[in-house]
Amino acid sequence: MSFSTRISVRFGDTDPAGSVYYPVLFHYLHVAMEEFFALACGVSYARLIADERIGFPVVKSDAEFFAPLLYGDEAKIEVRVLRTGRSSVTLEYIVRRAGDGALVMCANQVHVTMDLNTRRATPISDELRAAFARNAVR
Amino acid sequence: MSFSTRISVRFGDTDPAGSVYYPVLFHYLHVAMEEFFALACGVSYARLIADERIGFPVVKSDAEFFAPLLYGDEAKIEVRVLRTGRSSVTLEYIVRRAGDGALVMCANQVHVTMDLNTRRATPISDELRAAFARNAVR
Amino acid sequence: MSFSTRISVRFGDTDPAGSVYYPVLFHYLHVAMEEFFALACGVSYARLIADERIGFPVVKSDAEFFAPLLYGDEAKIEVRVLRTGRSSVTLEYIVRRAGDGALVMCANQVHVTMDLNTRRATPISDELRAAFARNAVR
Amino acid sequence: MSFSTRISVRFGDTDPAGSVYYPVLFHYLHVAMEEFFALACGVSYARLIADERIGFPVVKSDAEFFAPLLYGDEAKIEVRVLRTGRSSVTLEYIVRRAGDGALVMCANQVHVTMDLNTRRATPISDELRAAFARNAVR
Repeated sequence: MSFSTRISVRFGDTDPAGSVYYPVLFHYLHVAMEEFFALACGVSYARLIADERIGFPVVKSDAEFFAPLLYGDEAKIEVRVLRTGRSSVTLEYIVRRAGDGALVMCANQVHVTMDLNTRRATPISDELRAAFARNAVR
Repeated sequence: MSFSTRISVRFGDTDPAGSVYYPVLFHYLHVAMEEFFALACGVSYARLIADERIGFPVVKSDAEFFAPLLYGDEAKIEVRVLRTGRSSVTLEYIVRRAGDGALVMCANQVHVTMDLNTRRATPISDELRAAFARNAVR
Repeated sequence: MSFSTRISVRFGDTDPAGSVYYPVLFHYLHVAMEEFFALACGVSYARLIADERIGFPVVKSDAEFFAPLLYGDEAKIEVRVLRTGRSSVTLEYIVRRAGDGALVMCANQVHVTMDLNTRRATPISDELRAAFARNAVR
Repeated sequence: MSFSTRISVRFGDTDPAGSVYYPVLFHYLHVAMEEFFALACGVSYARLIADERIGFPVVKSDAEFFAPLLYGDEAKIEVRVLRTGRSSVTLEYIVRRAGDGALVMCANQVHVTMDLNTRRATPISDELRAAFARNAVR
């Protein structure tokens, strides 16, 4: 069972062609990552940033887009850990249309653990490393 | 002659109804305000925030919307000072379609001068007060 | 009991000053309106636009801002009907921080019922008129 | 000489970590593509969508991120054609900080030519094919 979260497509998310503007799909991935931290890893991304001054910016993103999401659709986004390094984690995101399960987008993204004060990579804490292991693809 | 700036409507700014999503119009006002500070007041809003730790958040906004802006349109936004208080300034924004001059939106917004470190109102500097006077409605 | 909905502040909603960028607050109002249509009025805004080709663009907006919303906060937004005209409805939005109930923003917005094919105002349907009456300020 | 365009980072584009929120960087790529169509290919993307009902949605995106863009920075974005197929074009985007030329982001994106009425791939017109050839990497 991998972690998943749902996001409703909003009027303002869609473009004149009638589907979700693709940069907004990357915003959905970020929202899914925030939920993944809070619900699957037990640490709120907001507190991580405010208190521990740690962020996880994307340094590499590979994505494919299949079907569009339209206004009124709901997205179901699965998040899994593909690989955990010393100071980076690769997350896999699979976005489906909740209604019919149609595949919308797949993405692998490498996130670096960054010390927001120094803006340098920093090792992943043991607590997060254990959380990532629990959510790893097997 | 009042200050004005131009903004091109982008694909991602428009909604499934074909016109600029109205929260994006408020983003355009903010962009116009940033240009107003840089070009009419001689101070970059980015430097104001980063170096002087002063911001101008909106505390009151009254707006009316007339004609839509469509993808491919260009907006022309006039910015003028209606009133300068001790620690606030009221700006008038008039948004027109650049092509035919059609009125799109009028707004009066009260901006408070905020010390971003304390998050409290702070008096407007003499330099900015003079700049606001030069751009006041007469 | 008036209708209310909750929106989590996302990382991407906030600005370098640390609080929700004010145009995003207007986006929150639109999201709250979409939920109001679906949950309080029994009609999905997506279906209204796609099937009946009716929209409710804002023609007048009066807003005041009190406390900031920060990343990690949750907004609670109440929506009530202040006035229903022949082809317009005035909605009142009250945004609070869910945690401590602090008032964030109040807004009154006049929405016109627009036929999206002709882009002209059109009378409110009896079904929606009844729904607005059920959600009117008393 | 490859095509390039400049985009000013706006206050609302940046996040609480102080740099441009990465989905906004994808928005910048789309804006650069719109300018590329208008200025290097001689056809406005707005007219393409409205009149010819042709769009170029992204179906594959590979991106790497190097240095952050901060509020106050200006981005310089180069756009070149890597490969033109029957009904798709692969664009290369290189984003630099205009001031010091620091590399911010590189992306290769496959855009499909879509008939917006049928939502199916459609062959690239001779006119656009010639324009893409003029802007191809040699």
